[in-house]
Amino acid sequence: MSGSKVISIDAMGGDHGVSATVPGLALALKHLPGDLRFLLHGDQAQIGPELARNAELAGRSEVRHTDKVISSDEKPANAVRRGKGASMWNAVESVKAGEAAAAVSSGSTGSLMAIARLVLRMAVPMERPPLVVPWPGLKGVTTFLDAGANIECDAERLVEFAILGEAYHRVAYGVARPRVGLLNVGSEDMKGHEAVQQAHAILKSGRLDLDYHGFVEGDDLSANLVDVVATDGFTGNVALKTGEGSARYITEELRAALTSSLPAKIAALLARPALRRFKARITPTPAAPLLGLSGLVVKCHGGADAKDFGRSVGLAAELAASDLMSQIERNMSRLGAPPEGAPA
Amino acid sequence: MSGSKVISIDAMGGDHGVSATVPGLALALKHLPGDLRFLLHGDQAQIGPELARNAELAGRSEVRHTDKVISSDEKPANAVRRGKGASMWNAVESVKAGEAAAAVSSGSTGSLMAIARLVLRMAVPMERPPLVVPWPGLKGVTTFLDAGANIECDAERLVEFAILGEAYHRVAYGVARPRVGLLNVGSEDMKGHEAVQQAHAILKSGRLDLDYHGFVEGDDLSANLVDVVATDGFTGNVALKTGEGSARYITEELRAALTSSLPAKIAALLARPALRRFKARITPTPAAPLLGLSGLVVKCHGGADAKDFGRSVGLAAELAASDLMSQIERNMSRLGAPPEGAPA
Repeated sequence: MSGSKVISIDAMGGDHGVSATVPGLALALKHLPGDLRFLLHGDQAQIGPELARNAELAGRSEVRHTDKVISSDEKPANAVRRGKGASMWNAVESVKAGEAAAAVSSGSTGSLMAIARLVLRMAVPMERPPLVVPWPGLKGVTTFLDAGANIECDAERLVEFAILGEAYHRVAYGVARPRVGLLNVGSEDMKGHEAVQQAHAILKSGRLDLDYHGFVEGDDLSANLVDVVATDGFTGNVALKTGEGSARYITEELRAALTSSLPAKIAALLARPALRRFKARITPTPAAPLLGLSGLVVKCHGGADAKDFGRSVGLAAELAASDLMSQIERNMSRLGAPPEGAPA
Repeated sequence: MSGSKVISIDAMGGDHGVSATVPGLALALKHLPGDLRFLLHGDQAQIGPELARNAELAGRSEVRHTDKVISSDEKPANAVRRGKGASMWNAVESVKAGEAAAAVSSGSTGSLMAIARLVLRMAVPMERPPLVVPWPGLKGVTTFLDAGANIECDAERLVEFAILGEAYHRVAYGVARPRVGLLNVGSEDMKGHEAVQQAHAILKSGRLDLDYHGFVEGDDLSANLVDVVATDGFTGNVALKTGEGSARYITEELRAALTSSLPAKIAALLARPALRRFKARITPTPAAPLLGLSGLVVKCHGGADAKDFGRSVGLAAELAASDLMSQIERNMSRLGAPPEGAPA
């Protein structure tokens, strides 16, 4: 196998394990280049029968057996200490070793981050990869980061998120020149605290090669005012969960409203196909990249079915075929980011 | 007029001026104690004819004429510099002078805050009154603060928000022992940055007389997990606008879904009453108190109609009849808050 055409797979991750991951690969095949191959890490006894169902997939796959699995409720610190040799660990290790161009796992975010950070190392000087969220909205999707990985962020960190998000959005959504915004409490120049003020100044200065829109507000996310929104992990996590909570509340209330009377129930029945499309529109995509590492890792959500996992593998293949890493590196060098380990 | 039974009214504030404020008072009369009276500040020529339509209201009102109005797009700094004698200013001044127990205005939030802060002074050592938002959810309403007034907050400020919100929620919603939460990125003790960690320690210590639940997350707002949620003004503003944006997006998508086909259109028609009730449920109340001042001020939203303004006046009367101020003072003294002007 040539590493640049290989995706490394944690076959055991997620709630459904091999029954989602292997059929997911089969689905992904249809959209992937014919020379792409898979390196599957996990239990041969479980993977084998699943692979046998699809001759083409079997022909493009190699299995690396391991009994060891990192469970979804394992603490990240334990995953790092005791995870060596587990399917998730080995999937990431394959990227480090140059055997694969990207790794995909639907195991727990915390463990995957911790292992990826240890095995691959950060390429940018931040604590851990920002959580990247595809925020659905009226005009499409806004790439939102950090949704919770780096709780305390100075101005430079915010600018780094902008760089990572911009490069990622270009590759993932084919937008040549993504517009970037910085999350704040108002759009005027003097708004906000010191970190957003300073980041604003750096992004406005023209030192970086990106299209900076300026400050944006919370409601600009669902409006897709810009393509990429950067914020610190504290604010980002609260924003994400608040948005999810509001969506859940409104759909709950809607459900109650549409079962409150006979006419409403008939209405709900008639509207079912439209409401199904509606739900698909407001559900975010299941895949998220771990950016800022010295290697590509894609996290698929834990409850993923085959379709979700297939989409995540598709994203990994797309990122692997792109020049994402060099795009990021180019803008980081403009920022003059110090190498990891240097004082911030 | 005896001050304790008088509500002071900025009759000119909001998008609709006297055509909303005076009819709003008429609506409020039905629910208010018979000995409550109003002091209306504004243009006699406009207020007079509106008052003349309701004999009972006219009999319980006194008009204090002024030509001067603070427009909704006036900058707060200008409102403070040049606002003396305007209807909003005079409404607040009546509270300061002891002529009224509370003031109500639907003028701009920034100007009302700035004027109230200057005229009444803060009773607690914070920059300005926190923005208090009634967050609608599955089980009722959660009082959420600060939604944007105090951008940078240390631990003591967060605890003060908890005290203010708890006392307010008890009076406004009749909950004897409101449960209080602190917004964070997780519910575990070790989560979050230094300010929330320290505030958590103070709130857990038992020094204060309130029912502290612990950390809550963004999606706990719409779930109404607790009665009161405290956070800094930066996070609070982003959370509020993100929640609003998500709600807007989802209702837009829903509207699109329900007009996408003939069956869906029929469904929308059948579901109309249910959807109207749904919309009423997810729309927050129009009134917000300005807490932490040495006097009671209620802000009604700018687009308020008569019904909204009436509800705001009702809230002001309720707060005026309560021991809100002494409840706040009692817990603040337990915290050992220094007087205004002392180093923080």
